[in-house]
Amino acid sequence: MKVTESGADTYEVKVFRVIMRGPADVTGLVRLLEDGQLDPRHIVAILGKTEGNGGVNDFTREYANSVFSHTLAAYRGLRPSEIEENVALVMSGGTEGVLSPHATIFARVPAKMAACGAKRLAVGVATTRDFLPEELGRAEQIEATTDAVRAAMTNAGISRKEDVHFVQIKCPLLTAERMEAAKARGRKTVTEDAYGSMAYSRGASALGVAIALDEIASPVSVKAVLDDWSLYSSVASTSAGIELARNVIIVMGNAPGLGGDYVIGHSVMRDAIDIDGVLRAFSSAGLGNAGDISAVGRERIVNVFAKAEPSPDGLVRGFRHTMLDDTDISATRHARAAVGGLIAGLSGCTAIYVSGGAEHQGPPGGGPVAVIARAG
Amino acid sequence: MKVTESGADTYEVKVFRVIMRGPADVTGLVRLLEDGQLDPRHIVAILGKTEGNGGVNDFTREYANSVFSHTLAAYRGLRPSEIEENVALVMSGGTEGVLSPHATIFARVPAKMAACGAKRLAVGVATTRDFLPEELGRAEQIEATTDAVRAAMTNAGISRKEDVHFVQIKCPLLTAERMEAAKARGRKTVTEDAYGSMAYSRGASALGVAIALDEIASPVSVKAVLDDWSLYSSVASTSAGIELARNVIIVMGNAPGLGGDYVIGHSVMRDAIDIDGVLRAFSSAGLGNAGDISAVGRERIVNVFAKAEPSPDGLVRGFRHTMLDDTDISATRHARAAVGGLIAGLSGCTAIYVSGGAEHQGPPGGGPVAVIARAG
Amino acid sequence: MKVTESGADTYEVKVFRVIMRGPADVTGLVRLLEDGQLDPRHIVAILGKTEGNGGVNDFTREYANSVFSHTLAAYRGLRPSEIEENVALVMSGGTEGVLSPHATIFARVPAKMAACGAKRLAVGVATTRDFLPEELGRAEQIEATTDAVRAAMTNAGISRKEDVHFVQIKCPLLTAERMEAAKARGRKTVTEDAYGSMAYSRGASALGVAIALDEIASPVSVKAVLDDWSLYSSVASTSAGIELARNVIIVMGNAPGLGGDYVIGHSVMRDAIDIDGVLRAFSSAGLGNAGDISAVGRERIVNVFAKAEPSPDGLVRGFRHTMLDDTDISATRHARAAVGGLIAGLSGCTAIYVSGGAEHQGPPGGGPVAVIARAG
Amino acid sequence: MKVTESGADTYEVKVFRVIMRGPADVTGLVRLLEDGQLDPRHIVAILGKTEGNGGVNDFTREYANSVFSHTLAAYRGLRPSEIEENVALVMSGGTEGVLSPHATIFARVPAKMAACGAKRLAVGVATTRDFLPEELGRAEQIEATTDAVRAAMTNAGISRKEDVHFVQIKCPLLTAERMEAAKARGRKTVTEDAYGSMAYSRGASALGVAIALDEIASPVSVKAVLDDWSLYSSVASTSAGIELARNVIIVMGNAPGLGGDYVIGHSVMRDAIDIDGVLRAFSSAGLGNAGDISAVGRERIVNVFAKAEPSPDGLVRGFRHTMLDDTDISATRHARAAVGGLIAGLSGCTAIYVSGGAEHQGPPGGGPVAVIARAG
Repeated sequence: MKVTESGADTYEVKVFRVIMRGPADVTGLVRLLEDGQLDPRHIVAILGKTEGNGGVNDFTREYANSVFSHTLAAYRGLRPSEIEENVALVMSGGTEGVLSPHATIFARVPAKMAACGAKRLAVGVATTRDFLPEELGRAEQIEATTDAVRAAMTNAGISRKEDVHFVQIKCPLLTAERMEAAKARGRKTVTEDAYGSMAYSRGASALGVAIALDEIASPVSVKAVLDDWSLYSSVASTSAGIELARNVIIVMGNAPGLGGDYVIGHSVMRDAIDIDGVLRAFSSAGLGNAGDISAVGRERIVNVFAKAEPSPDGLVRGFRHTMLDDTDISATRHARAAVGGLIAGLSGCTAIYVSGGAEHQGPPGGGPVAVIARAG
Repeated sequence: MKVTESGADTYEVKVFRVIMRGPADVTGLVRLLEDGQLDPRHIVAILGKTEGNGGVNDFTREYANSVFSHTLAAYRGLRPSEIEENVALVMSGGTEGVLSPHATIFARVPAKMAACGAKRLAVGVATTRDFLPEELGRAEQIEATTDAVRAAMTNAGISRKEDVHFVQIKCPLLTAERMEAAKARGRKTVTEDAYGSMAYSRGASALGVAIALDEIASPVSVKAVLDDWSLYSSVASTSAGIELARNVIIVMGNAPGLGGDYVIGHSVMRDAIDIDGVLRAFSSAGLGNAGDISAVGRERIVNVFAKAEPSPDGLVRGFRHTMLDDTDISATRHARAAVGGLIAGLSGCTAIYVSGGAEHQGPPGGGPVAVIARAG
Repeated sequence: MKVTESGADTYEVKVFRVIMRGPADVTGLVRLLEDGQLDPRHIVAILGKTEGNGGVNDFTREYANSVFSHTLAAYRGLRPSEIEENVALVMSGGTEGVLSPHATIFARVPAKMAACGAKRLAVGVATTRDFLPEELGRAEQIEATTDAVRAAMTNAGISRKEDVHFVQIKCPLLTAERMEAAKARGRKTVTEDAYGSMAYSRGASALGVAIALDEIASPVSVKAVLDDWSLYSSVASTSAGIELARNVIIVMGNAPGLGGDYVIGHSVMRDAIDIDGVLRAFSSAGLGNAGDISAVGRERIVNVFAKAEPSPDGLVRGFRHTMLDDTDISATRHARAAVGGLIAGLSGCTAIYVSGGAEHQGPPGGGPVAVIARAG
Repeated sequence: MKVTESGADTYEVKVFRVIMRGPADVTGLVRLLEDGQLDPRHIVAILGKTEGNGGVNDFTREYANSVFSHTLAAYRGLRPSEIEENVALVMSGGTEGVLSPHATIFARVPAKMAACGAKRLAVGVATTRDFLPEELGRAEQIEATTDAVRAAMTNAGISRKEDVHFVQIKCPLLTAERMEAAKARGRKTVTEDAYGSMAYSRGASALGVAIALDEIASPVSVKAVLDDWSLYSSVASTSAGIELARNVIIVMGNAPGLGGDYVIGHSVMRDAIDIDGVLRAFSSAGLGNAGDISAVGRERIVNVFAKAEPSPDGLVRGFRHTMLDDTDISATRHARAAVGGLIAGLSGCTAIYVSGGAEHQGPPGGGPVAVIARAG
């Protein structure tokens, strides 16, 4: 995956949030392309929230993926598969509660080297090779992810690890069919439960990020995956989907020497109701002082990106939650709805990116939260 | 339903929030009774949040109801049916997202007339007669509710309408069986959809409150039910359940001349992410200034009571939500999860009372929110 | 919608059942086209069962629709929209229980006039105009459907009404957005509940079939829709979907003078467990004698097409069912699973077409069942 | 658990199937007791199908359990806990599709030794000790179950293993709370997924039955649980529930020397659509010849007992099913609905006992099916 940067010293990131009236609605993207606000060759990543169940049989992700790649292919005169090689398409399913389906489009536009020193939003992408079903949730996935995160940092032009504020990864899951394929080759997958495999894939990917950014020591024992919750990344956000066989990585941070108007900040929610964590993230992106809700510059928020999960011990600040024991609604759907309600309230907008399943992404029951804002 | 007040000039309200480890867990209540903190004869109402789906086939409500009434019956030497005549048992199903199953127990303890003038929390209860299936959602239910709200105000000792801050109602719903019974008698029910009947019953009950408190003019056309969303009460909170055939009403407010340490305040959430509405309710109960989140006296909060619903126009501040189009998760479950996440974040506790289905309770898409706090 | 019949006296119908490994899996179709077994210009209809929830937010239908039309467009050198004009694409969501996702492809192949008299499978298609949201479930939809059924009979070459054995219709539904659009124009839709609108659209469409085939008298009062269950068609099968705004009609029957190896038969299931009804349909298609399960020529079955619904009175042969009172699983999902289990057992195969929501399609709680078989 | 047999040579089994209009509806039982048809001291077991989700948070099981034991306690002048010691109360959740909530009551009535030789229905019960959370799904649970099955055979008076036709077991599951309790004691449970723990508990219990009846060799490696599907019992039916901590076992078979009018037979469904397996079970109970559906003596069927599960390889006779990949509806709910539809069709009644989760109960994807009938 390479990023076009012809004829310029450096680049600036442009970010557009477009609504989606269904998983196949690309009218927001098309309008930007037709208006001339966006050159299709500059698009490096699209992060979508689609309205499926976010689980194994959520086909809204691959459907949106397909329509976005077909649309860009038509505008660029390429095949859809070539678009998927060049643009990081990450669709996260699940818009429970107030969450509103939308996509965030990231473009890298060639620019002259910025004179002054303020850091600006930087974005880089990379991918791993395709994984075999039996590699998911294990050392192979962790290590390949670590390498790809480093490649994406280089691609973004970010040299310091502390300048990385968000690492979005799309990773594969195991279907009944893929598990049978492994078994037919005499291999045992990490789990035989399709829904459960999503957690393993997300967890291993997050540990790969943590190693790349020196948040934890390497190597990690494969037994630690979904077991040792003290190991986590504070900036990883990983989503599993049926539509791919490899990991796709998007690194976001701030870097000097870039053009553009945007900055990114982040913090960590310690638990699912950690309002102070969200306000710290706002503050980290230059949006007022943490703790004072009336001082938040909501109108400068471009989007908020957060991970949500039910705490594995079944408690939130000592009070029992019922998310893990509900046989009717999957735990990730519960968690997205609740955290989505909180962050939407704080940011004043429901078209935010809240993704479920935060294994090894932030502390247990919590998760990373990042904010992209217009520089003040 | 009468409230024991023997040998005292007045009363004070005691409020206890106890956790529930399942729909049948009454150990919190039993501990209060065994410790001598609570005299069973003083209990006037119990508001529970149980962990069912909150829909038609949520049997956790009637199960909890049954266990609470059997337990109190044993302590008071009465039959369970006598308890149900004397104590307003309201179980609201649905603890989606972070919400934690619990019950709030209200007791009226005889006290000497308070000398000074500060108003304190007052509670009164009343019931309507049993309704026929075909009366639900129609004029009969509205009118009987209006009368019962006035009776409950008298019971509480609240004379001014503006002193009423929350009116909790439990109302019946239509099952397939009840609809057939009406049809067999040649009567047509307001709807033939069991889940849909919950909305009609909640809506008509709320309009009954609005009339009793002069929030809207009387009479209301029966066509307005679930149609004219400009008609609503700012303090009504109504929950439908399979376990009863009549409306049970609990009026909460502040009144002069009472004992006790508690006060209640309320406001209205204009939509499902109205953080300012929640903070106004906190402020109304004397918990800091609205808008400054760091100044909220969270440790003084006893419980928060709120209604949640998906906005009928499918939008939250212009952005589409998907709650009404989801065939897998009912819209009320979505709404409770989202609003529960927001209020839990603001109040720092997940054992709060967020109930779904806010038809004619607050503006469309929003709902009333009340707070009981220890006086500062 | 016209059907190519160039250079031939008559036609024969070819029917192919292909499995689908996901909503976008068209490899079965592609193989037939690549192998030369099927000329893309001959395809007149595709009936798919996709693995969504079959409800309002089931996007697997439009996703499959999109992929099938794009694929055929590539093979025929047309635009996808032109394919949709010329081929009746009907995707029915929901493969609960044992049901297996698949598609049935119908082709009309030019043939010389058959000499002998045995009737053979005939297929014809037609469409209505696009409907406005407020026309769904009302007279406009009923009447336009009646006209289109007659047009499809003519297209099939079926002149006698008793030779029609199955009429498959795909019809629109109301989303929150479409309802708002109608309201904005000052129009009231037949319901404000998206899931409920599917029933109205299916019911009105089925009544349109019943009138066209003289099963009931015309005109039908609009009040009869979803109310007078004595009015129904014994051959109508209607499915609502978000992906279209008009009705698409496929008429299937037997006609003299055609080529081909296939015949169709049908009967009616009186209730959801009517095993004798299914066996009568088998018998009607020449597959052994009704009642003797061991004599069914299962290996000659090409596919079975049936409608399923929960009986509106909440009973099956006097015993209560819980489908209509379940807030977690929609009633149509329950019904498809149960009826699918029964018919799959009888036919020995799970890739059968069982569709939910049988309003005015067969008697209440039952539904039509048709079988296409190779002639014995 | 002992079974009253005072003053008689032998006993006869009486079986009553009563409908339930809700999880707490015991009016069917009460009518039998009030009419004098049934002496409460003779009841040895009650098998109920309640209308919950059959999963972790299905409280309809414990609710029904509680109401049945309270009711019997009142009639026998005992405490509810004493009833639970003396009567095997097994509530299986889930009445998906057409299944109808009901209970089957088994009574052992003292009788004179039968002179002639025909075998008649025999029932015996036993329980294990309470298990620790970490014992579930492991050797401790398997071994204790084997012992208890043998005890229940002795209790029933069945000496030959081939005379055992059905062994119903109710077993515990792991909740988030129970898993935390084990972890606090430094123990690791077999899984950390509550829903997944139900499968482990059911599987280990079934293997215990298989050993007791010499269907498989002992000891079984603990690794075989949920892994080696070639190991299974053809008569075990195990259901997990939140309401108990031990296994409760009911053995049913035919024995010589008993009184009564009932016999039991069984067979195995090889897969979820194995209609021949069901007919073989009918035949085994003397209800006509297998294969001829019209010859089944449906009016003599008292109840059918079957287990259902999605085949672990994701296929039914080569066709893919989607039960294991559905994040919205749990796989056991799908399977009960489908198998329930088939067996209800064959037996002509929807108040049948179809229970989900057939791990090591019959071949993978299939399950045991037993029939109690009035002797011809």
